[in-house]
Amino acid sequence: MRTLLVIGIGAGDPGHLTLGAIDALRSADVVIALDKGEQKADLLQARRTVVDAHSPGIPIIAVTDPERDRNPSDYRAEVRRWHGERARLLSEAIVGETDPDGTAAFLVWGDPSLYDSTLRIIDRMREETGLECVVRVIPGITALQALTAAHAITANRIGEPIHVTTGRLLPATSAADRRNCFVMLDGGTTWNEVAGPDTYMYWGAYLGTPEQILRAGFVEDIGDEVAALKCTLRDSHGWIMDTYLLRELDAR
Amino acid sequence: MRTLLVIGIGAGDPGHLTLGAIDALRSADVVIALDKGEQKADLLQARRTVVDAHSPGIPIIAVTDPERDRNPSDYRAEVRRWHGERARLLSEAIVGETDPDGTAAFLVWGDPSLYDSTLRIIDRMREETGLECVVRVIPGITALQALTAAHAITANRIGEPIHVTTGRLLPATSAADRRNCFVMLDGGTTWNEVAGPDTYMYWGAYLGTPEQILRAGFVEDIGDEVAALKCTLRDSHGWIMDTYLLRELDAR
Ligand SMILES: C[S@@+](CC[C@H](N)C(=O)[O-])C[C@H]1O[C@@H](n2cnc3c(N)ncnc32)[C@H](O)[C@@H]1O
Ligand SMILES: C[S@@+](CC[C@H](N)C(=O)[O-])C[C@H]1O[C@@H](n2cnc3c(N)ncnc32)[C@H](O)[C@@H]1O
Repeated sequence: MRTLLVIGIGAGDPGHLTLGAIDALRSADVVIALDKGEQKADLLQARRTVVDAHSPGIPIIAVTDPERDRNPSDYRAEVRRWHGERARLLSEAIVGETDPDGTAAFLVWGDPSLYDSTLRIIDRMREETGLECVVRVIPGITALQALTAAHAITANRIGEPIHVTTGRLLPATSAADRRNCFVMLDGGTTWNEVAGPDTYMYWGAYLGTPEQILRAGFVEDIGDEVAALKCTLRDSHGWIMDTYLLRELDAR
Repeated sequence: MRTLLVIGIGAGDPGHLTLGAIDALRSADVVIALDKGEQKADLLQARRTVVDAHSPGIPIIAVTDPERDRNPSDYRAEVRRWHGERARLLSEAIVGETDPDGTAAFLVWGDPSLYDSTLRIIDRMREETGLECVVRVIPGITALQALTAAHAITANRIGEPIHVTTGRLLPATSAADRRNCFVMLDGGTTWNEVAGPDTYMYWGAYLGTPEQILRAGFVEDIGDEVAALKCTLRDSHGWIMDTYLLRELDAR
């Protein structure tokens, strides 16, 4: 049976790579770069850098998402067709590039468990194509840990819970959950929509990379400045990845 | 000025160690093993193993928590005294074991941001003793990532938030937050107190170690069995570390 390795490579810093990830990578016959329509060039480059540094001989096969009709007459049918097509391309690449007992590796940004679709796509592929394989996951450092490390802060306060959400869900998040709340996947500046006078923000973009940039302060004081900064950075880099922790402070 | 490195070493698997953690460790003059009353022997041993494997020459200094009166007449005064004493011991060890521009490393289980007091203790020490130092944090793989990797699952479902809490807080956690809810620091079997008919549990103990053990299923089906297992394991090992993810499934 084939083995599929889903390897977390950390969130930007080559030093995030674990010894386990390197071992796993070296055991692979091929790396499949699943292109899920992210900042394509940069993420492909990040994977190439990891492979070149730690396992130079291994070929990287890019599997590009099939075209998708964004305004179909039958939405569900189109998504089904699209998923099926993706599953077919993926299994074709795996079967074509590995022996029946071979190993293919997927390099995943951050950790494979956190807002990443690789495991779901693999499940889908197994269901749709019947490809038999063992899946092994190697954890990676997430953007959340890169953020807290960069600010040298803890995620939780003593005995408090932690909430992790997306920019889209943040406005509907309860006040209780916003006490210690990580936000990922915020295409905008949602911090400004939810902050009260005691909302503190630890913000970071391009974490772990040479472009890493940090801001911390009450949203009331720095919210607009960070919004402007995010806009400028996105313009000059062409893309941005930012993450933040909102924390309600009890007294100002 | 001195540098304090707070290095996450991962949650049990030597393969969790990152390249950045190894580099940081090698740059240290001394490792401070802050003994916060955990499973002392085992955790000290884990640190020793890491140092022996990657930086054999570096001395490990154990700083043991000072004695604490658990039933003081003035609780706050006693905690203050105890924190002060701990800060004094810690700064004494750092000053005694490093040059004024030297580097001391703290090896932290998992990631330093997640339910760990090292950063807080260091802050305290700086406030109380005025020791000047730069703090640098190196992220580590958490028990949460070890859990999801072992089960080959994602933490979130598409577009859903993630909640992280403790066994103590779980009973007071809202149903919404229990949809995708990680639980750490559960000394008991709190899953049985909160589960409904559609609550699924992914459970793991001794994650990342050769003793790793996993269970997954509806709490209604496996809750009692895992409770018995936890009891047996704790008896035979002398201690247990377990973590779980509760997930409300929409239809059974
Ligand atoms: C699709 S999610 C993937 C998360 C990834 N699996 C992880 O474990 O961090 C992408 C989001 O992660 C965050 N992110 C990832 N890498 C980042 C970085 N280097 N700096 C800041 N944010 C980052 C951003 O919020 C971004 O929108
Ligand atoms: C004081 S917290 C420290 C967490 C750590 N900083 C981390 O990042 O994982 C200790 C709790 O973490 C969880 N834990 C840590 N290591 C674990 C392991 N190897 N297996 C299962 N649970 C673990 C347990 O829930 C335990 O009660």
